[in-house]
Amino acid sequence: MFINFQNHIQKNFSFLQDKKLLVATSGGMDSMVLVHLFQKLQFKFALAHCNFQLREKESDGDENFVKEYAKSNNIICFVTKFDTEKYSQEHKLSTQVAARNLRYNWFNEVLEHENFDYIVTAHHADDVAETFMINLSRGTGLDGLTGIPSQNGTIIRPMLPFSRKEIEDYVSENDLQWREDSSNASDKYLRNKIRHHIVPVFKEINSSFLQSFQNTLEHLNQEQSLVNDAVQMVYEKIVSEENGQLKIDISGLVEYKNYKAYLYQWLYKYGFSAWEDIYSLIVAQSGKQIFSENYILLKDRDYLILFRKENDHFEEIIINSITEKPNFPLKLTLCNLSDISNQLKSVIFVDESKLQFPLTIRKWKEGDYFYPAGMQGKKKVSKYFKDEKFTLFQKHETWILESNNQIVWIIGNRADERFKTENTTQTTIKIAFNEEDI
Amino acid sequence: MFINFQNHIQKNFSFLQDKKLLVATSGGMDSMVLVHLFQKLQFKFALAHCNFQLREKESDGDENFVKEYAKSNNIICFVTKFDTEKYSQEHKLSTQVAARNLRYNWFNEVLEHENFDYIVTAHHADDVAETFMINLSRGTGLDGLTGIPSQNGTIIRPMLPFSRKEIEDYVSENDLQWREDSSNASDKYLRNKIRHHIVPVFKEINSSFLQSFQNTLEHLNQEQSLVNDAVQMVYEKIVSEENGQLKIDISGLVEYKNYKAYLYQWLYKYGFSAWEDIYSLIVAQSGKQIFSENYILLKDRDYLILFRKENDHFEEIIINSITEKPNFPLKLTLCNLSDISNQLKSVIFVDESKLQFPLTIRKWKEGDYFYPAGMQGKKKVSKYFKDEKFTLFQKHETWILESNNQIVWIIGNRADERFKTENTTQTTIKIAFNEEDI
Repeated sequence: MFINFQNHIQKNFSFLQDKKLLVATSGGMDSMVLVHLFQKLQFKFALAHCNFQLREKESDGDENFVKEYAKSNNIICFVTKFDTEKYSQEHKLSTQVAARNLRYNWFNEVLEHENFDYIVTAHHADDVAETFMINLSRGTGLDGLTGIPSQNGTIIRPMLPFSRKEIEDYVSENDLQWREDSSNASDKYLRNKIRHHIVPVFKEINSSFLQSFQNTLEHLNQEQSLVNDAVQMVYEKIVSEENGQLKIDISGLVEYKNYKAYLYQWLYKYGFSAWEDIYSLIVAQSGKQIFSENYILLKDRDYLILFRKENDHFEEIIINSITEKPNFPLKLTLCNLSDISNQLKSVIFVDESKLQFPLTIRKWKEGDYFYPAGMQGKKKVSKYFKDEKFTLFQKHETWILESNNQIVWIIGNRADERFKTENTTQTTIKIAFNEEDI
Repeated sequence: MFINFQNHIQKNFSFLQDKKLLVATSGGMDSMVLVHLFQKLQFKFALAHCNFQLREKESDGDENFVKEYAKSNNIICFVTKFDTEKYSQEHKLSTQVAARNLRYNWFNEVLEHENFDYIVTAHHADDVAETFMINLSRGTGLDGLTGIPSQNGTIIRPMLPFSRKEIEDYVSENDLQWREDSSNASDKYLRNKIRHHIVPVFKEINSSFLQSFQNTLEHLNQEQSLVNDAVQMVYEKIVSEENGQLKIDISGLVEYKNYKAYLYQWLYKYGFSAWEDIYSLIVAQSGKQIFSENYILLKDRDYLILFRKENDHFEEIIINSITEKPNFPLKLTLCNLSDISNQLKSVIFVDESKLQFPLTIRKWKEGDYFYPAGMQGKKKVSKYFKDEKFTLFQKHETWILESNNQIVWIIGNRADERFKTENTTQTTIKIAFNEEDI
């Protein structure tokens, strides 16, 4: 497999040519190749480096290396430091997941603040194969095998077809400097085991293994899309939503020999785990219930009915002033009109004079309506959810920001027309929602 | 993972208790454990051993070992010899595929001749993991990853949950004798590489890897069933069959973002390989065609039309007498009424006096009708295909056996009532079809 890196990027990522790019740069071999390529291609880009402070002096060394490289090459460079261990303990996350959350949250912040179009990462073919094997070693489904997408929203991964070997060759040919990459420190043992002892055997068996593997991934991704279609099509046939409950018609369901597969796909995101119990609800007595942390699945004569436990229905969070930090991942800041750039669903800009404190954050309720930004007239929130094809789960997870009994924002989804900034606006409040922190 | 072998079989395969079983016995460790278990469980079974003659004296040694074991344990034993190399050359197959075809064809013959209910094989969890890795090493899709089913028609594999380690332990505990298994000789290099260098690393990473892997397989099998559903549901919406042609409505198709996935799933069995060309037919000029060995896919204004190349439409094979060996995998033999046992779609028994030679073997044509066995009255063959949900491909691949312009058999599918044996039948002809040999 020989791919000319530059040609590949010019052919498949030509749309990056006139975009403003933020390159995730650990200082490791992969990211330094990416940076070098983007320099040669004369792309408009800046570097973004995270110091996770997991390896003390070495981490600081990486940071300095990236800063120095940026300085001597006249590239803008954003750097941040995280107390990764503290964050992982507070959020009960593995160091690896903590680092990933911190990294992508910050990249998105910089993207938004500095008006970048895309975040670019240096993931390559071996990374994808290793991730596949890691998930396989733990036990997984199709979703765990379908790999890392080359584009996912604002994240672009142009190096996915390249192997580690090709990257190494590029490094020696171009005599690049780099530092040992420590960004995936916590699963280093597992990943290294796979990198050094499994993937090489596959490459020995089949010298173009990584290429065959990409074909496999294409097949699996196609098949994942067909799974999603089936799950949706059958859902539309035999599931109905009423009063915030989800109603599964058992007689319709069991016409599908593989009804367990449908139940699993519809219900796993509600946190259930006792699957055998759920499957046997089909033939259980009316009244039997299965619980997850937040949901109840009830056998009610010819239906399975899913509904949320009542404990958080009346939860409300009050924000008394713009300086108050609410117990909710919402950040209010005053800003200049010139700062307004809005490509993100997670940020709105409102006219300060239209907003009336205290603000309320709450779950939606039947009868709620709002004036969707950019549209004329009002709309029921339930109708909005339906048009946007929200699942029951998404509805339950969606919060409303309210001012003086008027909806300001379906948080993270759609602003209200009534509060938006206008030419006459004197003071703008930026309201940013960080979904990852919920 | 500790499973008591006997308990597992008693719990999950209790239906085997009063069945007549044919145990595929290579003489290797796995099959000797299976045989030993069935002895302890007092199942009704015989052994079936294939001598593939691939390793000369060693193969004969295996054969003798199995025969001796059967003799000293009072078990009936069927043995056959194959010229595997010759068969693989004649049919242009790898030794491994040749051996598999020969093996299963013969097992099925014995099953049918001797009125067995099931063929039982000793495949175990490591076999499944190895096959997964073999397919992964070559590049595959979901079908290549979903593994070996525990039941597939008349084939039963009760040892799938057991690991090789557990089988080895069983062998030492029970002091069993066995011979090195050579049945998968041709992929020995590849399989051994995976057995010795890949699977052990996964087991090192996750000590219950084989168990996690079984969960993975369950997920993948569920997801494969959802893929099949989507493929069928969308087919019914936008594909129609007219005059032996398959018509795909392009405007309906492209409403699916993942329409390439559907095209692939519908068309791969027709032997196409130029997938990018097929996908771009969507926007190609009317009249453009893509060819496979036997089929043509034509862009015709708003449709993609699939039809068979005309070359074999008028092909007919004539059988002049019962002793003639036709150039078609059909075998006619005289037999006693007592030999009649018919659980197989691949065999029919007809009254010799009703059959009129020469017989004709041909493809079906519009207007064909027959009298389906076990039903009253006649039925159009096209209607039969529709009721049985034959795909266009299956229709094209189906042959008709005809006598005096009357259909005797939709070969491999449904016999005709008019030719069946009755109390008055003096001579019976058995007609057997060997699909594998087409």
